[in-house]
Amino acid sequence: MKELRGGVTAPEGFKASGIRVGIKKTGDKKDLALIWSQERCTAAACYTRNKVIGQPLVVTKEHLADGHAQAVIVNSGNANTCTGEAGIIAAKRMAALVAERLPVKPEDVVVASTGVIGVQLDVSPIEAGMEALVAALSKAGSIDAREAILTTDTMKKELAVSVELGGKTVTIGAMAKGSGMIHPNMATMLGFVTTDCAISSGLLQEALSESVRRTYNRVSVDGDTSTNDMVVLLANGMAGNAPIEERGADYRAFAEALDYVDTQMAKMIARDGEGATKLVECVVTGAASEEAAEALAKSVITSSLVKTALFGSDANWGRVLCALGYAPSAFDPNKVRLAFESPRGYLEVCVDGAGIPFSEEKAKLVLGAQEVTILVDLGGRPEGGGQATAWGCDLSYEYVRINGDYRT
Amino acid sequence: MKELRGGVTAPEGFKASGIRVGIKKTGDKKDLALIWSQERCTAAACYTRNKVIGQPLVVTKEHLADGHAQAVIVNSGNANTCTGEAGIIAAKRMAALVAERLPVKPEDVVVASTGVIGVQLDVSPIEAGMEALVAALSKAGSIDAREAILTTDTMKKELAVSVELGGKTVTIGAMAKGSGMIHPNMATMLGFVTTDCAISSGLLQEALSESVRRTYNRVSVDGDTSTNDMVVLLANGMAGNAPIEERGADYRAFAEALDYVDTQMAKMIARDGEGATKLVECVVTGAASEEAAEALAKSVITSSLVKTALFGSDANWGRVLCALGYAPSAFDPNKVRLAFESPRGYLEVCVDGAGIPFSEEKAKLVLGAQEVTILVDLGGRPEGGGQATAWGCDLSYEYVRINGDYRT
Repeated sequence: MKELRGGVTAPEGFKASGIRVGIKKTGDKKDLALIWSQERCTAAACYTRNKVIGQPLVVTKEHLADGHAQAVIVNSGNANTCTGEAGIIAAKRMAALVAERLPVKPEDVVVASTGVIGVQLDVSPIEAGMEALVAALSKAGSIDAREAILTTDTMKKELAVSVELGGKTVTIGAMAKGSGMIHPNMATMLGFVTTDCAISSGLLQEALSESVRRTYNRVSVDGDTSTNDMVVLLANGMAGNAPIEERGADYRAFAEALDYVDTQMAKMIARDGEGATKLVECVVTGAASEEAAEALAKSVITSSLVKTALFGSDANWGRVLCALGYAPSAFDPNKVRLAFESPRGYLEVCVDGAGIPFSEEKAKLVLGAQEVTILVDLGGRPEGGGQATAWGCDLSYEYVRINGDYRT
Repeated sequence: MKELRGGVTAPEGFKASGIRVGIKKTGDKKDLALIWSQERCTAAACYTRNKVIGQPLVVTKEHLADGHAQAVIVNSGNANTCTGEAGIIAAKRMAALVAERLPVKPEDVVVASTGVIGVQLDVSPIEAGMEALVAALSKAGSIDAREAILTTDTMKKELAVSVELGGKTVTIGAMAKGSGMIHPNMATMLGFVTTDCAISSGLLQEALSESVRRTYNRVSVDGDTSTNDMVVLLANGMAGNAPIEERGADYRAFAEALDYVDTQMAKMIARDGEGATKLVECVVTGAASEEAAEALAKSVITSSLVKTALFGSDANWGRVLCALGYAPSAFDPNKVRLAFESPRGYLEVCVDGAGIPFSEEKAKLVLGAQEVTILVDLGGRPEGGGQATAWGCDLSYEYVRINGDYRT
């Protein structure tokens, strides 16, 4: 597997664009993006499990029911959620606008929106901008597209890798947005993954679902599962590889590359959590099962008290034990080992569930890094028994500032 | 029922004291409290459901196994948690110190601690201060005791009420601490309730468990269930009422008064949440059951995004719908009605799951109050079907400041 420059347009046959049409009321940020594939794609998707779901998700689920798609239209600045029947009409209109100007059926258009909830989406600026959006479609357009899907994000999130499958180079590209309201359950805010791999629709969905479970679904910024979470994976088959139709070596190589992409994207989302000053990783080993380890790791990275301690580079490890203790997984508190690790060093703080002496100076050094890993070994089984990693970020003043006045 | 001045010493036969012995390293705040009853009491308690529990809870559970107690010793500044066998010895020593100086068996002493987790508790300052602590026991001592149990709290939390039972005046008094790591499950940080009511140990526990479920357990400051949560209720029978031994009218009158006390204490804890600028109440009606309503109300008051919006007095109601949507209770998103209410007015923002126009000016006014209620009607059943209220607070810069550097 090789990492490449670029994002969603790195695979064969994909173009993208992004422009500003004025859905975001203030500033000069882009707010409308388009991805288009020359060939019709097999498509897979994962959605939020929130019971309140955005109108674009209702429409997209309908459109992807047949396992195929060819284009994605995304606006930022308005989530088109809690907008009733008018919101459904608006989402369908977005798909229709793409189909009017490109050789694509409206039912093959994925529609996604992100931004404030509960405000009607005015489609007229999208209509007015559609010609320019289509005209801008290009290979280089992924640079504008990755920008146009952002809201409070401060970093662009994209990645591309290639793998060799039977002598053919298969490429996977991705872009995502996600900064607040991030605690995905079956998907994350918005993630778009493209590939030129030839793969059946069923296996594409399997690969995506399996990967999302271990990547996007293990990220939390604020514990709030969004109404608009969506990860979509489009495969147009243009790499010319022998179509993947069973779970053999090619499937495993593709799934591994997809996992790598999704893991990196998940970490980018955590690192760019609203107000975050550092990426926090929690690795739990020695749990009864992978599921138990996952619940524990997610509990730690979601704890407001752990997050604020990390913001202050304070080795207040008792809060980690507290967060483990209220997670829905059984373990023996008297066997817990706890350490912090970062590029600046390694610091053990707790053995057999009780504190051990450590240097406060070294703690400040290790925790002051921009990436901090919390290592939890439950000692319940040989290392590696049940293990999982989750990603989050610290909780800063800036998170409060951003969210105390997001709407106005 | 009548509200009285005072707290845990309001009922007949209870005295209390609070002093500084230096467990809190800095400042001049009191850190050791004692409650003592002239007569041995029936006792009931609820504890945290966190799997990591503080050493004082282990000891207290042992001491209360027989349903009786006569004194409570509490220190703040150190939670004596994750401290292994040495911590158990320290907690037992605290009970023994009380028994050495008062006509009380060590097994009749409740031990509680609050503060930082994972640091060994040095008992020597407690030993040194014990004589002064006992000497200070008095009716007026509740003023010092309620202070000595606080950590990051900014407000004292106490209350007393009286009810007439068969011509006798029965009094209930209470004090609590709780400001951060507040998301109780079966109890809250520390709550001490005293009464001179004569009541059987079994009914005392029933009344407490039932009340805690609807009061302390519906408070959240930061979603973190503490390791040291404990509510203890002591009844010394000195009111001279006919002992309550069945669930009749006297039991109901007592339970109602207890509920009132616990509700007020729960609200005091929420209002004094770390960094809080306002008390937030969420009332859910029209749910399928009380349990469903409770889960929904707690999800709303726990959401970081709802909390930051309230800090900013921003009527970003979409976040309320989002938090309802990820709670583990079924409801129809298209029937939700949402309004904000405060002493400054009433503002409806969402009908049938979709936004309705409202005045931003009025929204700022209503949400700018120090007490804000979020009214959620799910329309699933006639109003009042399944309903529940939960209490929390907003999330401010100050919460981050307090918790970014709590330990050092």
